[in-house]
Amino acid sequence: MSTSAQIGVTGLAVMGRNLARNFARNGYTVALHNRTASRTHALVEEFGSEGDFIAAETAKEFVAALERPRRLVIMVKAGDPTDAVIREFAPLLEPGDMIIDGGNAHFADTRRRERDLREQGIHFVGMGVSGGEEGALNGPSIMPGGPKESYDSLGPMLEKISAKAADGSPCVSHVGPDGAGHFVKMVHNGIEYADMQLIGEAYQLLRDVAGYSPAQIADIFRTWNTGRLDSYLIEITAEVLSHVDAATGKPFVDVVQDQAEQKGTGRWTVQIALDLGVPVSGIAEAVFARSLSGHTELREASRGLAGPKAASLSESEAGAFADQVEQALYASKIVSYTQGFHKIAAGSAEYDWNIDLGAVSSLWRGGCIIRAAFLDRIRAAYDTRPDLPSLLSDETFAQEIGSAQDDWRAVLVAAVQQGVPTPGFAAALTYYDALRAERLPAALTQGQRDFFGAHTYRRVDREGSFHTLWGGDRSEVAG
Amino acid sequence: MSTSAQIGVTGLAVMGRNLARNFARNGYTVALHNRTASRTHALVEEFGSEGDFIAAETAKEFVAALERPRRLVIMVKAGDPTDAVIREFAPLLEPGDMIIDGGNAHFADTRRRERDLREQGIHFVGMGVSGGEEGALNGPSIMPGGPKESYDSLGPMLEKISAKAADGSPCVSHVGPDGAGHFVKMVHNGIEYADMQLIGEAYQLLRDVAGYSPAQIADIFRTWNTGRLDSYLIEITAEVLSHVDAATGKPFVDVVQDQAEQKGTGRWTVQIALDLGVPVSGIAEAVFARSLSGHTELREASRGLAGPKAASLSESEAGAFADQVEQALYASKIVSYTQGFHKIAAGSAEYDWNIDLGAVSSLWRGGCIIRAAFLDRIRAAYDTRPDLPSLLSDETFAQEIGSAQDDWRAVLVAAVQQGVPTPGFAAALTYYDALRAERLPAALTQGQRDFFGAHTYRRVDREGSFHTLWGGDRSEVAG
Repeated sequence: MSTSAQIGVTGLAVMGRNLARNFARNGYTVALHNRTASRTHALVEEFGSEGDFIAAETAKEFVAALERPRRLVIMVKAGDPTDAVIREFAPLLEPGDMIIDGGNAHFADTRRRERDLREQGIHFVGMGVSGGEEGALNGPSIMPGGPKESYDSLGPMLEKISAKAADGSPCVSHVGPDGAGHFVKMVHNGIEYADMQLIGEAYQLLRDVAGYSPAQIADIFRTWNTGRLDSYLIEITAEVLSHVDAATGKPFVDVVQDQAEQKGTGRWTVQIALDLGVPVSGIAEAVFARSLSGHTELREASRGLAGPKAASLSESEAGAFADQVEQALYASKIVSYTQGFHKIAAGSAEYDWNIDLGAVSSLWRGGCIIRAAFLDRIRAAYDTRPDLPSLLSDETFAQEIGSAQDDWRAVLVAAVQQGVPTPGFAAALTYYDALRAERLPAALTQGQRDFFGAHTYRRVDREGSFHTLWGGDRSEVAG
Repeated sequence: MSTSAQIGVTGLAVMGRNLARNFARNGYTVALHNRTASRTHALVEEFGSEGDFIAAETAKEFVAALERPRRLVIMVKAGDPTDAVIREFAPLLEPGDMIIDGGNAHFADTRRRERDLREQGIHFVGMGVSGGEEGALNGPSIMPGGPKESYDSLGPMLEKISAKAADGSPCVSHVGPDGAGHFVKMVHNGIEYADMQLIGEAYQLLRDVAGYSPAQIADIFRTWNTGRLDSYLIEITAEVLSHVDAATGKPFVDVVQDQAEQKGTGRWTVQIALDLGVPVSGIAEAVFARSLSGHTELREASRGLAGPKAASLSESEAGAFADQVEQALYASKIVSYTQGFHKIAAGSAEYDWNIDLGAVSSLWRGGCIIRAAFLDRIRAAYDTRPDLPSLLSDETFAQEIGSAQDDWRAVLVAAVQQGVPTPGFAAALTYYDALRAERLPAALTQGQRDFFGAHTYRRVDREGSFHTLWGGDRSEVAG
C-alpha cells in the first residue's frame, strides 16, 4: 500500500462518501476507511473512476496510507461515535497530525476534544460543513475551527473543494480556535430556522390574507428572488410551492402534514444564546413554531378557540399587500441576522476566538442553505466598520429597515387583526422597537425585584446600587 | 446536648435563618449549623426567644441533635456548595434519614443526588421554596419532591410553616419523585418572568400610548387588582409605580436604570423546555427582554433607528384603551400559564413524575411571587377535567380569552403602529393563533427540508413517510 494519500476520510455514509469524492475529483488522493469495509469497497467500485482512492480495511492501514502530517477527516455521527473514532485513531497518530471532525458536533464537545488532543500534539479541527449531501459532493460551505497552523496545510485543500461565491472566492476560511467552527455552523443552522419560519409566515399571509394560491405565491417568490431577497431558500420555496402532487392533483404543500421536524442545532443555538445573554428571539420562535406544529393533541383541542373574521382583499389590494409582505420579510430577515451575528460576536468574546464576522458572512455566500445575495451586504457592512456593534447600526441596513418599517407594521397589523400567526415577524419587530426604545419597562422590573427580593437597582443619576425599604418608610439605602 | 430536634437547618444565610425561625415559631425544636459557627450563635442570640434552638458547632454535633429519622435541611448555594455539604453529612446519616435541599437547585442535579443517596438508604428531598426572605420567615410556597414516604413524616411540618391560601389550605404538597419539586419551582420562576414582562408591557403602553403618568398607572393597577388580575405582582406594581423618589421628586420608576437583571431560573426554564419540545415563547421573550435591556452598547447604537409617529389619545380614548390593555394582559397571562403548565406536564411525562397540575396551582396560591386569585381558576379547570390537554381547552378560559381577543388584538395593533415594544403580548397572541390554526406553514417547512436535505415528509392522506425526487422528475418515493 502506498503512503501517498493527502487526506483520509473515515465514516463513509452519504456525507463522508460525497466529501471523499469531492476531494478525489479535485485531484487529491483520498484514503478511505469505514467500520464495515464493504462500504469502502462499494465506494471504490462505484466511483473509483472519479479519482485516486486508497481503500483501507483497518485503522492501521488507513493511517499508514496518509502522507505526513496526516489529515484524517471523521464523518461519523456527532456524540459518542465521534469520541469512539478519536479513541481508535489518536494512538496511531504523531505530533503535527490532524484530526478533522466534519460532523455536526456541539462546540463544547469540540473544545473538549481539541484540548485533550492538544496534549498529544495532535491538531484537532472541528469543521462545520453546510450544504447537505449535494454540497458535500459539489462544494459545501466550510467552517473550520482549531489551531491556526492546521489551516496552513489544510486550508488550500478545503478552498479547492468548497463552494465558490459569485465573485469566485472560496466559501471557507479559518473561523477561529477550538470550537469556533462548530459554533458558527450552529448559528448558521439557527439562522436557517429563522429564515424558513419567516418564509413560512410570508407564505401564510399571502395565502390567508391576500387569497393567493400556492402557484401564484410561487410566482411571487420567483419575483422576489430577482431582488434583494435573492437566495437559495426563496428559490426552493418557489419550487416547492409550484409543485403539484401527482396522486391528487392538489398543490403539494396542501398534501404534506403540517408538522415540522427538527434535529438539534436550532435548539442548541437558542440554549447557548441564553447562556451568553444574547436575545435570539427570532430563532427561538422558529424552533418553538416547529415544536408547536407537532403537538397535534393540543392543536386539535384548540381548534374551536375564537378567532377574528377574515377580510378579503381585491386583486389590486392583494398585489399591494404582497409588496408589503416583501418589505416585512426583508426587515425581519435583517433582524434575524442581526441576532445571529450578535450571538457569534458574543461567543467569540466569551471564548476568545477573535472571529472575523465579515469573513463568516463571506463563507456563507455559497454552498450552504442560507446562501444569499444578502450576505454580500453583510460583508460590506463589516468591511466598512469591523467593530459594528450590531448589523442594525450599519447605515445601509438602518436605512433599508427604516424605509421598510411602515409596511412591516402594516403587515403585522393585518396578521394580528386577521389571526394569522406570525411569531417570527412579531419577534423581529418587537426586538427592533425594543432596541431603539429610549426607555424600557426594565426599570419597573428592577423596582419589582427590589420590592419582593431586595435585589437592588441602579439609578440613572448616581453610581452605585440601591435598595428602597419597601416594607418600612420607603427611604433609599445603599444596596 | 439533647437529641430532641425535629428538624435541622445547615446554612444560615438569610433564607436558611428565616426558615429555621419559621420552624421554631411553629413549635418545632430546630438544630442549627453553619460553616462559621459565629452565625449560628448570632441567630440564637438574636432570635432565641422565638422558640427552641439547638446550636451545633460541628457536623457531628448537628446530626446528633436530630431525632430519628433525621430531617436535615440544606440552605446553601446551589451547585458545588450543595454537593460539598451532602458529602459532609451523608456519611453521618442512617437509612431512613432525610436530606432536604431547599436551595434553587437545577432539577437534573436533584435527580442525580437523589439517585446517589438512595443507594445509601437516605431520602433526598429536592424542595423548591418560593417567597423570598419574607416568605421563608412567615410562610413560603413549598414544592417538595423526592420519595413519597418522606412526605409522610416531613409533610405535616411543611404544612405548618407554609403559607396558607385564602381558603386556609397549606401551600405545599408532595409534587413528585426526585427532581419534580425543583422542576416545578423552576417553572414557577419562568412564569414569574413572563408575568413581570407582561406587566411591564402593559405599563409601557399605558404610558406611551395612553399618556398616563406613573401615578395614574398605579391607580389603574390598583383597580385591576380588585378584579380577575388580583395578584401579588399587580399589587406591588402599583406600589412601585406610585413611589416618588425623595432625592429628585420624580417618579421612582424614572430614576431607576432600565436594565433588568436575572439569576438563572428563567433561562433554565426555556432551555429545558427546548429539550422537551414545549413552546414557552412568552417566558423566552421575557428572558430575552431582560438581556436586551442590559445590552447598553447595542441600545445606544440603535437609538437613531426609524420609528413611527406617536399618536395621542383623548382622555376618554385613554380610558377605553386602559380597559383594552387589561383584556390583553389577562389574555396573555392565560397563554403564559398555558405554556408553563404544558411544560410541567411534559416534564412529568418525560420523568414519570405523575404531577398533579391542579395541586401545583393550589400550592402557588399563597406565599410565592406569582400568588394570585387566578390560580383558583386553574385549580378549578383541572378539577373539572384532570386530563385537560391544555389550559386553553378549559371551557372557562377559552370563553374568557375569546371575549378578550378583540381588545387583545386592538392593543397589539396600537403597539405595532406606535412602536411600543410588546414582545410578550405578541408571543402570546401568535401562540394562540398558531394553536387554533387549521393549517400551519410547517407543511412548507417540511417541503423545504425534503428539498434540500431529503428529510422526507408525511402526507395528510396516507400513512408512511415520503420523499420527492426534487432533482429528478419530481416523482414521489417512499422515504
